[in-house]
Amino acid sequence: NTSFDRNKHPHRRYNPLLDEWILVSPQRANRPWQGQKEDTTEENRPVYDPDCYLCSGNIRANGARNPEYKGTYVFNNDFGALLNEEIDFSEEHSGFFTLLPERGINRVVCFSENHSLTLPEMSVEQIKNVVDIWQEQFNELAALDHINYIQIFENKGSVMGCSNPHPHGQIWAQSSIPAMVHKTQDQLKFYFENNKRTLLEDYLQQEITAGERIVTENEHFVALVPFWALWPYETMIISKQKRENMAGFSENEKESFATILQTLTTIYDNLFEMSFPYSAGIHQSPTDGKPHPEWHFHMHFYPPLLRSAEIKKFMVGYEMLAEPQRDITPEQSAAILRNLPTIHYKKNNK
Amino acid sequence: NTSFDRNKHPHRRYNPLLDEWILVSPQRANRPWQGQKEDTTEENRPVYDPDCYLCSGNIRANGARNPEYKGTYVFNNDFGALLNEEIDFSEEHSGFFTLLPERGINRVVCFSENHSLTLPEMSVEQIKNVVDIWQEQFNELAALDHINYIQIFENKGSVMGCSNPHPHGQIWAQSSIPAMVHKTQDQLKFYFENNKRTLLEDYLQQEITAGERIVTENEHFVALVPFWALWPYETMIISKQKRENMAGFSENEKESFATILQTLTTIYDNLFEMSFPYSAGIHQSPTDGKPHPEWHFHMHFYPPLLRSAEIKKFMVGYEMLAEPQRDITPEQSAAILRNLPTIHYKKNNK
Ligand SMILES: O=P(O)(O)O[C@H]1O[C@H](CO)[C@@H](O)[C@H](O)[C@H]1O
Ligand SMILES: O=P(O)(O)O[C@H]1O[C@H](CO)[C@@H](O)[C@H](O)[C@H]1O
Repeated sequence: NTSFDRNKHPHRRYNPLLDEWILVSPQRANRPWQGQKEDTTEENRPVYDPDCYLCSGNIRANGARNPEYKGTYVFNNDFGALLNEEIDFSEEHSGFFTLLPERGINRVVCFSENHSLTLPEMSVEQIKNVVDIWQEQFNELAALDHINYIQIFENKGSVMGCSNPHPHGQIWAQSSIPAMVHKTQDQLKFYFENNKRTLLEDYLQQEITAGERIVTENEHFVALVPFWALWPYETMIISKQKRENMAGFSENEKESFATILQTLTTIYDNLFEMSFPYSAGIHQSPTDGKPHPEWHFHMHFYPPLLRSAEIKKFMVGYEMLAEPQRDITPEQSAAILRNLPTIHYKKNNK
Repeated sequence: NTSFDRNKHPHRRYNPLLDEWILVSPQRANRPWQGQKEDTTEENRPVYDPDCYLCSGNIRANGARNPEYKGTYVFNNDFGALLNEEIDFSEEHSGFFTLLPERGINRVVCFSENHSLTLPEMSVEQIKNVVDIWQEQFNELAALDHINYIQIFENKGSVMGCSNPHPHGQIWAQSSIPAMVHKTQDQLKFYFENNKRTLLEDYLQQEITAGERIVTENEHFVALVPFWALWPYETMIISKQKRENMAGFSENEKESFATILQTLTTIYDNLFEMSFPYSAGIHQSPTDGKPHPEWHFHMHFYPPLLRSAEIKKFMVGYEMLAEPQRDITPEQSAAILRNLPTIHYKKNNK
């Protein structure tokens, strides 16, 4: 028999954050592709677009007008998935028909008044302003009694369902702890109770020792391709010190965080020399008033592209029905990302 | 306070098959869409395409030649995600780095030699041939000692990552029980042990009584939009009698199954008068040699489209990080599907 080689042979890996397995098929990277290709014509966006409902001073879809803001700007989503209204509910579920009302607040965070920018093209100071707003919003929403979890995220690129290219992210704050966060919390808690350290403190130590999945790091944060990454170029930013959430981030830490965000997103853009799409979001402790010593601040990046700007990884069929599956290994992805320049290709080409 | 109305107010629903919650936002269906649109130019495909590697008599990507088949044709995937080779493995995981080799067989099932067809355009007799092949393959693969689970599925349409429009599906047979099937099995088992009936027997009874989520039914099968459906037009076909898997399907049942497949996929095509994309797959008992009285045959359909042929539901951002979210309610979707004609629009237009 041949002996096992993780760079050649199909295998499954375990994700301790979600208690799930994924299938890795390294030998599959060379299969021919006759399927759908993404449109990669890169628009050259103007700094101001009169038709954009996120630009400074413009009128939004619901008729409200944005102020003449500079830098960041936050407002309640005009078409939020949640409503903040208190609703009277009398148990209406029976048997298999279990439902519960859900209350919450959806906000949009514009990263800059400049319509043409994206995070990797912003300066560290400008990104730091975004981090400041995230922290401010977290504190403000956490103070509300009926808000028990706050999901901060960004969908970048139309392939990720982003409906407007103006640089922006979203915040969904709600009364329940959503499914995946809840699962993660159970895992973190179990680990913490048994080890008196957070799962991510110990995982990070092992990753630093191994080295092979690290992409970049600075004083306070590490960006790496998780051992159990599911998307081809998935990464995770983890705080080196245990932080339950960003409420207590110092100025220094916020600047470090802004710096690693700039470096990581620049590396992403440099991979295929295009504005690299992803969904990214922060996982941190719920704001339910309970102690959460098990939590450890981290941010996930889920980019859909696989082999080029045009060819994405489809999570369909087997992946929807059975188990997530990836082609290139996390170690291969990390090596590719780690070796890319940290200066944005557009600046280099100038 | 307003009182709760599930057609107006955000709420969460519970999925007993996966022990997960989803967020339903019925008030969100009207938000404007400026995001990505799918290309809907429908190619008029020829019955034979000399460049298609699945057509009868053609040469495939790896150089092998297909026989001059008529009807169905099965072969081993030339670029499978699994390898059937036995591999020597000595424990190499440590700490958080847990991995295990995975062995299996990937097959491609051509549904017809006719390149231009899709399931809804095939006759019940032709679809019955596909069901026969699924049953045959299930029996053949189940007999192999190292195969413990068999995932039969179809990715239809390029938006679902299907790399070739020739009518075909896939079979991935493997040594482990994949993550989502395992989770479903745990749920089914727990229910069966407590109730001595399968979860889906009891669920189906409640759905038939409620009526509002049923799409179509015949002698042996029901197609419905599950109470906890996540995709806008997600459906599930459930066998009326408890069947652990399709090995024991009678000729009669196979014909009923072919008929409901034809009806459901025709309804789908009629929704936007286009070849309706989806990933669909059968969940049935593992072939691990253990008794599985808890299992109940069903088939999931996960279609990505939301508002039109061009606008799909993006499962991104909040959905990737926190919890699946849907806009229109399952009851609204079921009513729309139930009221569509069951004769294919192309036949009607002739
Ligand atoms: O095997 P295919 O059709 O080339 O590939 C398609 O189906 C597979 C199984 O659902 C997925 O893993 C791939 O991402 C998808 O593109
Ligand atoms: O809120 P947006 O940007 O209009 O919408 C986008 O992000 C949401 C949250 O991730 C998703 O639910 C939508 O499917 C997606 O299109």
